[in-house]
Amino acid sequence: MSETIFSKIIRGEIPSHRVYEDDLVFAFLDVNPLSKGHTLVIPKEAVATLDKLSDESSAAIGRVLPRIARAVMAATGATAFNVLQNNGAEAHQVVLHVHFHIIPKFEGRGLGIGWEPTKADHAELKALREKIAHAAATETQKG
Amino acid sequence: MSETIFSKIIRGEIPSHRVYEDDLVFAFLDVNPLSKGHTLVIPKEAVATLDKLSDESSAAIGRVLPRIARAVMAATGATAFNVLQNNGAEAHQVVLHVHFHIIPKFEGRGLGIGWEPTKADHAELKALREKIAHAAATETQKG
Repeated sequence: MSETIFSKIIRGEIPSHRVYEDDLVFAFLDVNPLSKGHTLVIPKEAVATLDKLSDESSAAIGRVLPRIARAVMAATGATAFNVLQNNGAEAHQVVLHVHFHIIPKFEGRGLGIGWEPTKADHAELKALREKIAHAAATETQKG
Repeated sequence: MSETIFSKIIRGEIPSHRVYEDDLVFAFLDVNPLSKGHTLVIPKEAVATLDKLSDESSAAIGRVLPRIARAVMAATGATAFNVLQNNGAEAHQVVLHVHFHIIPKFEGRGLGIGWEPTKADHAELKALREKIAHAAATETQKG
């Protein structure tokens, strides 16, 4: 368990522009928005990265992401948006408490995406598939 | 309901490198990966964007994202990763069936992120918070 600024926000010790809260989830406006309506959706469970999050908290976030997205779109008038969740400093994570960004894309603002696909090697993909599928099945049985 | 290439992949009419499947969720390797282990996690429910997705399907995806991420990390040796979900052509969406990318970040490869925050206007954030919170509460009551 890692205590960050987000734990203080959840407990109300640091003020935030809260837009949603339930037993497991808290959502609030990013104070350095990429676009109008940029919202952070976080678990109350204080873990750094998504792979450490409990099934229960992760399902709870999944469940409310569509309705919070609808609320953000309704309030801002945006029709396109990105959901981004970063894990690890190398992957652009700054606050070490799981957070999903909902970022409206409109008026030329929002998330910039750099996309440089590699050439598929199907023999390599097939071998990798075996390893990931096996690991995912093992993880499933743990749950 | 919109039929895309992903519906054919789910039904097995188009082959894929499947890594996970349950009643509501299907996951497979991206054949144009940004990095080794780039995986797509999709609902079997055929809707174009996250805001259209049922609570049930969305919760089911949320629940399995951590375990699929763990499996991808275990199989590739990556320790950092991004989760990205795009909605609308303007937001970089290509296939019009909800999909979450799990993109390992390592060996100099992965998702590129463009991040240009705006200056926070707290009066504006406060007004926006009211609108989004109200819309989210209304959505919640529908659920």
